[in-house]
Amino acid sequence: MYRVFGMSSSGNCHKVKLLLEQLREPYDWQEVDIMRGESRTPGYLAMNPNGRVPLLQVGADIFLPESNAILNYLAEGSAFLPTDRLQRAQVLQWMFFEQYSHEPYVAVARFICCYLPPDHERRAELPRLRERGHQALKVMEQHLSSRRFFVGERYTIADIALFAYTHVADSGGIELVPYPAVRRWLEAVRSQPGYVAMPA
Amino acid sequence: MYRVFGMSSSGNCHKVKLLLEQLREPYDWQEVDIMRGESRTPGYLAMNPNGRVPLLQVGADIFLPESNAILNYLAEGSAFLPTDRLQRAQVLQWMFFEQYSHEPYVAVARFICCYLPPDHERRAELPRLRERGHQALKVMEQHLSSRRFFVGERYTIADIALFAYTHVADSGGIELVPYPAVRRWLEAVRSQPGYVAMPA
Repeated sequence: MYRVFGMSSSGNCHKVKLLLEQLREPYDWQEVDIMRGESRTPGYLAMNPNGRVPLLQVGADIFLPESNAILNYLAEGSAFLPTDRLQRAQVLQWMFFEQYSHEPYVAVARFICCYLPPDHERRAELPRLRERGHQALKVMEQHLSSRRFFVGERYTIADIALFAYTHVADSGGIELVPYPAVRRWLEAVRSQPGYVAMPA
Repeated sequence: MYRVFGMSSSGNCHKVKLLLEQLREPYDWQEVDIMRGESRTPGYLAMNPNGRVPLLQVGADIFLPESNAILNYLAEGSAFLPTDRLQRAQVLQWMFFEQYSHEPYVAVARFICCYLPPDHERRAELPRLRERGHQALKVMEQHLSSRRFFVGERYTIADIALFAYTHVADSGGIELVPYPAVRRWLEAVRSQPGYVAMPA
């Protein structure tokens, strides 16, 4: 049985939980509170030297970090990852887009608004983060305006990766009102079999 | 024949050129000068709405962005991408590490030092970028201290992805002196058949 080290309120960690639930794969969830430094202890750093969550334990002493690498590992051979060479690369295209052009803005804006005190100096970053977040959402809106899902007209791990922080973008002050195709797609993800909501 | 849209002095673009050379795959290189706005023209945005390089044209109207997605696409079925499920996931692990924990610091420090005027206000970002860059290099040093390459003891696209900006880290003020295993690995990459240097 897989063991997952993660923080339930983290979108990156919720990606892994959502896929495991949809795969009907049993797993043991070990809660790690990064706000209390639990991902920076010597014991945790021995499992993941980069000190981040989520982390998937796949063997006695084998640990796989990076949420989107974990999704690819778990989805191999399932309906959530295409077999076609180009479609597999397109799944990765959207996952790298998520980690480079989306998460560093949409997730960080949420983090500052929801986890830091209201007078924290990092609030000065919010205008730029929101501007970049909207840039990412515009790219998603354009793509989804003529498609149901990101790749191959079916639900894949690319959708799971992008859903994680998009569906809570408003908690970082990034409103989804201007993006009807994105909002339609969020509903399509929520209606998938085995969907589980991220804790508030 | 593949067509690549890229800027030769960009590490992300050089990844694609290096792999194509090592695969002995013919390609047509279309130079795109992002400093002159050539990745933001209506014609370019029609090919890649996210307005970034590199971009691989794989069919009449099929364009694949994201350097690391392109590497996975091109390397499929070659010696540069393992077939083992865990090793494939570990290749992705290091590629997501590169785009999230390495490139945004090491590449951006180089960009500020080499492409912006010496009195540019973004130089204020350099201390934080260098600190984070060193954090990434420490993770790499620890991993490489007992290994020749990042995954499976052979040269893969994970090495190509991480080589791109690591080997020019010093141009952003991030010295590699404290990282002997990283420097040994850089030499191992440079000695691979078909290696081509990135233009200065």
